[in-house]
Amino acid sequence: MSILVVGSVAFDNIATPSGRVENELGGAATYFSLAASYFSDVRVVAVVGEDFSAEHEQVFRRRGIDIRGIEHAKGKTFRWGGQYLDNLNEAKTEFTELNVFETFQPHIPPEYMDSQFLFLANIHPSLQAAVRLELENVRLTGGDTMNYWIQRTRKELEETLRMVNVLLINDTETKMLANEKNLPRAARKVLALGPQALVVKHGEYGATIFFREGAFGIGSHPFRAPALPIDEVKDPTGAGDSFAGGFIGYIASQGQLTREVLKRALFYGGVMGSFAVERFGTARLQSLTREELEARFQIFRELTHLE
Amino acid sequence: MSILVVGSVAFDNIATPSGRVENELGGAATYFSLAASYFSDVRVVAVVGEDFSAEHEQVFRRRGIDIRGIEHAKGKTFRWGGQYLDNLNEAKTEFTELNVFETFQPHIPPEYMDSQFLFLANIHPSLQAAVRLELENVRLTGGDTMNYWIQRTRKELEETLRMVNVLLINDTETKMLANEKNLPRAARKVLALGPQALVVKHGEYGATIFFREGAFGIGSHPFRAPALPIDEVKDPTGAGDSFAGGFIGYIASQGQLTREVLKRALFYGGVMGSFAVERFGTARLQSLTREELEARFQIFRELTHLE
Repeated sequence: MSILVVGSVAFDNIATPSGRVENELGGAATYFSLAASYFSDVRVVAVVGEDFSAEHEQVFRRRGIDIRGIEHAKGKTFRWGGQYLDNLNEAKTEFTELNVFETFQPHIPPEYMDSQFLFLANIHPSLQAAVRLELENVRLTGGDTMNYWIQRTRKELEETLRMVNVLLINDTETKMLANEKNLPRAARKVLALGPQALVVKHGEYGATIFFREGAFGIGSHPFRAPALPIDEVKDPTGAGDSFAGGFIGYIASQGQLTREVLKRALFYGGVMGSFAVERFGTARLQSLTREELEARFQIFRELTHLE
Repeated sequence: MSILVVGSVAFDNIATPSGRVENELGGAATYFSLAASYFSDVRVVAVVGEDFSAEHEQVFRRRGIDIRGIEHAKGKTFRWGGQYLDNLNEAKTEFTELNVFETFQPHIPPEYMDSQFLFLANIHPSLQAAVRLELENVRLTGGDTMNYWIQRTRKELEETLRMVNVLLINDTETKMLANEKNLPRAARKVLALGPQALVVKHGEYGATIFFREGAFGIGSHPFRAPALPIDEVKDPTGAGDSFAGGFIGYIASQGQLTREVLKRALFYGGVMGSFAVERFGTARLQSLTREELEARFQIFRELTHLE
């Protein structure tokens, strides 16, 4: 089934201990859609500038991603520069040029209106809500946010969270959103704001999914998926969005919204995140095979499963 | 089979967001032996002062722990004070009074000489080595250490590591010992120093066991066990030693030293660590039932196992 993702397409300058790249195609919607494309049809709503070329379009097209929803505006594409020289777990932003993204108003092409799965990548919560409200056939909405929106647009964010079924954020964001240091307690507070499930991404330690009592099945036990210990993290950029792409992509590929599907989706999220960081930018996500993907899923499984 | 543990018995002053206690029975050998006592016979080699009473002895005796190796010396027992008010993951030490522990020389009672499993808790590496060398029937030696010994007694520690089969330390200690920031690479460097397996404890994120190629079975794939997301960590003191007690205790209870046994042991380590932090001091570890333990093991399993 089709997934619509709304979010950023960007050009990134990235420095890590493994090297540096400039003008690398990136952005949340890019990482998400490439990762999800291995599981489901994906449609992108975003905005780019005049520096977005036919070559860049090809990165999406080669993966069968529908980019009729990428608007071409006058000016430059969103640009971000950051480095991970001291800490691979957290980017130090060096510059942010919003450019055409500053006035971004998502326009949903009519052909996208039947989308059944939606991912609201990290943009202003009011834009997230507007997109959600336009779509009438959505069965499951995934969402992301960040400290910036939690602190500055709390009211709008709470409005949006009522429409999000699965929120995917990290430990720090969860605790900040709940104003609570203990993770399980913070998770319950976040679930009380609306989502039926909360995926907390722990970076190199994997992710935990917390369920609201009775959502997607019986009980409220959390579930954890590991991350693979990786010898060389070349570039952590986009790992979280790739995780979300694997997670929502797998769910959309299954008929049912059950806990077992969401648990497996958590593993596939980890799998896609682990591929993303192996090379700079989206290089690894552009050229995966189904076999590589299933082999990695098995490694993740063996990493935590007792006989 | 019997486990001999050598390490500290202490009285702790502890402050956490949940409250504070004074003169609480603690120390690595105490936490370890209580946790391991649910799986195997345990023998303790340690030193205490005149303030160690018959009541304190009873805490060990009620769990069937052999304390003939606890030496009673003139003076006061080792005392430690610390708080976790800002950060439950790391104690801020407020005072350390070594007292009788300062001149501790482990004496192994003749009745202990047939011990087949050994745990060298966190003491001077030369004392660890001396104990290991005295015991001729040991099948598996587990060991712990800390930043203090890594930085100040590197040579002695490397000597000891050649005699340790499974080293149990945390992320920071692993990276410090290997002088390498990437965890899998650091793990390989630590394994090159001697141990056949390395258990890296991640606190609230569980633990990973790395195997030297071919040790305890085929291949060198790591294995991860989760930690339970806990609503209220009352007191993190002793979590790592309780983890080690569950880990070595379970191994000693099994006939074979296989990877599958070590993987299950990693889960039991997590189980005992999760109980330890539920109450102040050793309270929870004193009164567990086999049923509670197995029920928690199942919860840990369900936390990560796909159908």
